[in-house]
Amino acid sequence: MILEGRHTRSIARTTDGKGIRILDQRQLPWEIRWAELRDVDAAAVAIREMWTRGAPMIGATAAYGLAMALAVDAGDAGMDVAYDTLVETRPTAINLRWALDQVRAAVAGLPPAERAAAAFARADAICDEDAGLCRSIGEHGLALLRSLHAKNPGRPLNILTHCNAGWLATVDYGTATAPIYLAHDAGIPVHVWVDETRPRNQGALLTAFELRNHGVPHTVIADNAGGLLMMQGQVDAVIVGTDRVTANGDVCNKIGTYLKALAARDNGVPFYVALPYTTFDPATARGADIPIEARSAEEVTRLTGPDENGRIATIRVTDSFALNPAFDVTPARLVTGYITERGVLERI
Amino acid sequence: MILEGRHTRSIARTTDGKGIRILDQRQLPWEIRWAELRDVDAAAVAIREMWTRGAPMIGATAAYGLAMALAVDAGDAGMDVAYDTLVETRPTAINLRWALDQVRAAVAGLPPAERAAAAFARADAICDEDAGLCRSIGEHGLALLRSLHAKNPGRPLNILTHCNAGWLATVDYGTATAPIYLAHDAGIPVHVWVDETRPRNQGALLTAFELRNHGVPHTVIADNAGGLLMMQGQVDAVIVGTDRVTANGDVCNKIGTYLKALAARDNGVPFYVALPYTTFDPATARGADIPIEARSAEEVTRLTGPDENGRIATIRVTDSFALNPAFDVTPARLVTGYITERGVLERI
Repeated sequence: MILEGRHTRSIARTTDGKGIRILDQRQLPWEIRWAELRDVDAAAVAIREMWTRGAPMIGATAAYGLAMALAVDAGDAGMDVAYDTLVETRPTAINLRWALDQVRAAVAGLPPAERAAAAFARADAICDEDAGLCRSIGEHGLALLRSLHAKNPGRPLNILTHCNAGWLATVDYGTATAPIYLAHDAGIPVHVWVDETRPRNQGALLTAFELRNHGVPHTVIADNAGGLLMMQGQVDAVIVGTDRVTANGDVCNKIGTYLKALAARDNGVPFYVALPYTTFDPATARGADIPIEARSAEEVTRLTGPDENGRIATIRVTDSFALNPAFDVTPARLVTGYITERGVLERI
Repeated sequence: MILEGRHTRSIARTTDGKGIRILDQRQLPWEIRWAELRDVDAAAVAIREMWTRGAPMIGATAAYGLAMALAVDAGDAGMDVAYDTLVETRPTAINLRWALDQVRAAVAGLPPAERAAAAFARADAICDEDAGLCRSIGEHGLALLRSLHAKNPGRPLNILTHCNAGWLATVDYGTATAPIYLAHDAGIPVHVWVDETRPRNQGALLTAFELRNHGVPHTVIADNAGGLLMMQGQVDAVIVGTDRVTANGDVCNKIGTYLKALAARDNGVPFYVALPYTTFDPATARGADIPIEARSAEEVTRLTGPDENGRIATIRVTDSFALNPAFDVTPARLVTGYITERGVLERI
């Protein structure tokens, strides 16, 4: 990933190796601020309060959180408490549990004195693996975009994406954005339609920020606009990330994804979901079995950003009551392909 | 319509009869302000700058605008200039041209001295007719809602609507809202899901304001949420307004309507379009023939509302470039029925 012209990663250990630093996404894109997390509670707050977000970043942060807990109390009881604290921060995120289980397995059977180091090593490895996975997702997606572009080589390739499944949500490259970054770097003229993604505006705030930093041409649109653009032939493919794919291939992702999948199907636009295999949840039969996280109504009724004087202000959007479901389910029948580190699969 | 507990209308002549007063919707819902328009240029500004909006209100305001022009210059040349000024304010609105043609026909052949009075009389009649039409739309829609509610009499009837096709967009009752108001008044327990309707948030700002004033239970949702709610069985019907219905039944309406129609179809939820017959445009064959108005990118990249201190502030949503198409087209195949003053039609 490129941030302010430099290659970096979204998460890394602090120089003393005992904590981690992550990009605090709450100020983005208006201010670039790194947050240092030095204990399990800080990690839990960072996940719950969405200082960081996205399945891989949640998993990596939680893995380090468990390692930091073990550095303080390496006993089984302490580990269980830390595990429970972390796993409850974002109930919909399957990677969270996966990463915690990885760390727990890595320290199982070790004497307490060796557990923290082993846990940190496993968390480091999770990060390296994630960057490698995203790179592989990007390469498989690149081949796909190359062939889509070959159909109309005379004009830019228009990709629509929803929410942020970019490097801010992963250790590097992103998932949905990895094919886009690799295509751009390979000289394919990519243009991205960025759904603003109400109510939290992760598209307008985060994805647009990433694409600006990487120099990829893009245009922000209201979430309402994608259907018209597809009908007008202005979208060559939709690529989104996902928080969880169930055994039957249903896709749990940011609220509004389902509407774009319907429009893509109605207009013959391919609809791709980019994910590492760790996001696949074979234990859940279908999307209807996933509990949908209801978030604060204030995310709908209030909006925060810099005012005319550059001061961060919060304005009222409505005085009525609001409901704020965070995710929806896109049925597998609407998915053209799953872009994974193992290749592009027609079914998961 | 009920505003602050009193029955009133959205547009009326000033007490001296020479101008009109309309609700200036730009301050709504934060401030209730009536604007007096006393010449054709003021009427044109009010339409173009969206002090007022909605097909019937645009038509009524334009009709009075032409009458006010004739009060100053009743000659044919002057009338043509005023007509052209008004017709260009909102190119997508078919009612605009219809209302202007009505006034022009009413004064054709009259001596100049009689034209202004005849034009005002025709504009008054357009307003009375519109209120009557909306009331009839409401009565036909009420019968529909009554039968939908009878299927599940034990729970509230959940209606989803998009944008504002309420009394703020008409002289009284509204179009999409007329069945809702009449059902509520008839004792049917109606609850309305109000799409916030980015980028201008007419749902969160205007429809919610109307429903609050009328006492109808409602919940504001992000535009992204409707698909999930339909999938969960939480929507019994969708009712929207329209700016234009083409000869084949395609529906031009606020951007995002098409996505809700797709979700309704996918989940077996009836999708209704409420309109007076004047919104039907038999001269346009199909939706793809309608030019889509592109509005200012700033409507996407900036949002205005009261800040923590009640001061109206404008905050930045993104620093990236944005595109802002105002309307989309819902194909006739997705429409369950058209609720008109003549009845509920399966095809137009």
